[in-house]
Amino acid sequence: MFERIALIGVGLVGSSIALGVRCEGLAKTIAATARSALTREIVAQKRLADVVTVSAAEAVAGADLVILCTPLGAYRGLMEEIAPHLAAGAILSDVGSVKQAVVRDVGPLVPEGVHFIPGHPVAGTEQSGPEAGFAELFHDRWCILTPPPGTDPAALKALSAFWHGLGSRVETMDPGHHDLVLGITSHLPHLIAYNIVGTASDLEEVTQGEVIKYSAGGFRDFTRIAASDPIMWRDVFLNNREAVLEVLGRFTEDLAVLQRAIRWGDGEALFDLFTRTRAIRRGIIEAGQETAAPDFGRPHGEEADG
Amino acid sequence: MFERIALIGVGLVGSSIALGVRCEGLAKTIAATARSALTREIVAQKRLADVVTVSAAEAVAGADLVILCTPLGAYRGLMEEIAPHLAAGAILSDVGSVKQAVVRDVGPLVPEGVHFIPGHPVAGTEQSGPEAGFAELFHDRWCILTPPPGTDPAALKALSAFWHGLGSRVETMDPGHHDLVLGITSHLPHLIAYNIVGTASDLEEVTQGEVIKYSAGGFRDFTRIAASDPIMWRDVFLNNREAVLEVLGRFTEDLAVLQRAIRWGDGEALFDLFTRTRAIRRGIIEAGQETAAPDFGRPHGEEADG
Repeated sequence: MFERIALIGVGLVGSSIALGVRCEGLAKTIAATARSALTREIVAQKRLADVVTVSAAEAVAGADLVILCTPLGAYRGLMEEIAPHLAAGAILSDVGSVKQAVVRDVGPLVPEGVHFIPGHPVAGTEQSGPEAGFAELFHDRWCILTPPPGTDPAALKALSAFWHGLGSRVETMDPGHHDLVLGITSHLPHLIAYNIVGTASDLEEVTQGEVIKYSAGGFRDFTRIAASDPIMWRDVFLNNREAVLEVLGRFTEDLAVLQRAIRWGDGEALFDLFTRTRAIRRGIIEAGQETAAPDFGRPHGEEADG
Repeated sequence: MFERIALIGVGLVGSSIALGVRCEGLAKTIAATARSALTREIVAQKRLADVVTVSAAEAVAGADLVILCTPLGAYRGLMEEIAPHLAAGAILSDVGSVKQAVVRDVGPLVPEGVHFIPGHPVAGTEQSGPEAGFAELFHDRWCILTPPPGTDPAALKALSAFWHGLGSRVETMDPGHHDLVLGITSHLPHLIAYNIVGTASDLEEVTQGEVIKYSAGGFRDFTRIAASDPIMWRDVFLNNREAVLEVLGRFTEDLAVLQRAIRWGDGEALFDLFTRTRAIRRGIIEAGQETAAPDFGRPHGEEADG
């Protein structure tokens, strides 16, 4: 489908794209670039790419699809490096969790004749690095593309087909709306998870050992996303400030109401909210975005011991 | 080990105890009681108990172990009903998620000669009801007992052995400390999860359909515990007000600091917290309280489609 795809950065998402491309035959040549020598070594060892380079400029030369797969904070520097080497007619995309900032930072540096279509596959695990990737990561997950006004329809079609090829469902969206939607479905949940894990670590009356022992009461769920890549998530919050502050404001407001209901023993208000929130999980399961198995299908008993 | 065990209430935990007792031969006779005719029918159909009664008084007659397995709000009424029928020398326990309130409500109603030892198995899933139970629910999870001062050592030993028999690890604790520890490891996580799901449902700029579609970005994790039993959780918050308000105060304080870091673009503060929180998940996995598999071992790709 593509002659040469260049993956700039080979973490969880970059390596999963590489494996999916190989598995589905979506490109003749995979070029990958990574700053760290260890990452390049793993890429070579696991044969994630046909060409592994230190230089991003070298990787993009002759590529008809280039995907930025690094944390958001690295985009601007990378663009300065690769812009002069991008082939005319190439598609330039990314996998960043924020889209307005990408339009702002990358957009002005895109050379004439290159099709710039930001993207965001809403998929991941709490693990990171080139060894964490797997080809099925994108199966049945949504990939959101935010084509700028005037995007070439053929380029958009080719990029959509690429993500379909990786097993994704594809949606296009305005970057501002993307940032708000992901603010509530991804960024706020991560912020809250990081925060509660921090709060639990800092309580002086409860030891860290106790938090760990009794974490099956609910806390351990939050530690999963609070184990996500710190650099990636720092960059998300630095680059989606307004939307995150907006949804965080709503969250805090609602939490104050709940706090008051607890203080005054308003059982009816608590019961009403706790009943209302059940339906949304059923919707997520029906939409194929979550397992129906109890406890996320975590192993119990014999299974867990094995 | 016990002659007759009486389970007052047969939801997720009650039915899991029944299955475990049967599986491990921990009692000769299992008596169960449930208010709802449907629950009693399921208990009979699934042979969860040898005796199924409407009357709790009838179930406890002749029992040497009685366990309250209903939501906390029902305890006082139940005690008024069963107290005159408890056998001398019997052990009376429960599985409630709060312990000071149980000591306060149940303690004064316990007849002379009955051994009252409150308990809390820190285990569960988001599902509820008699069909949700399974014998392995307590395997490798902690059961916390809060024996009052002067508890008969033989009775404590027998109840500990019972929980060991169900596959649990057992710890004893002061009820006040229990309520604070579980406040942070269980009650606050549930409150936060309920709250974020409520906030997401109420945003007018983002549709419920969008929240569902893009929930794999992190949000779906929270919907699991926000799908827990509303009555049980209403009663937890009504009965552990002080500890929950205390840990909620800490959480809100920490969140304000994080909010300020985002507003002012303090990447270093964000990175420091996000790095610190990674270690605690490793601790939980090492302590055998969580799976090491990425994404809770959720199915991906082919597996998920099957």
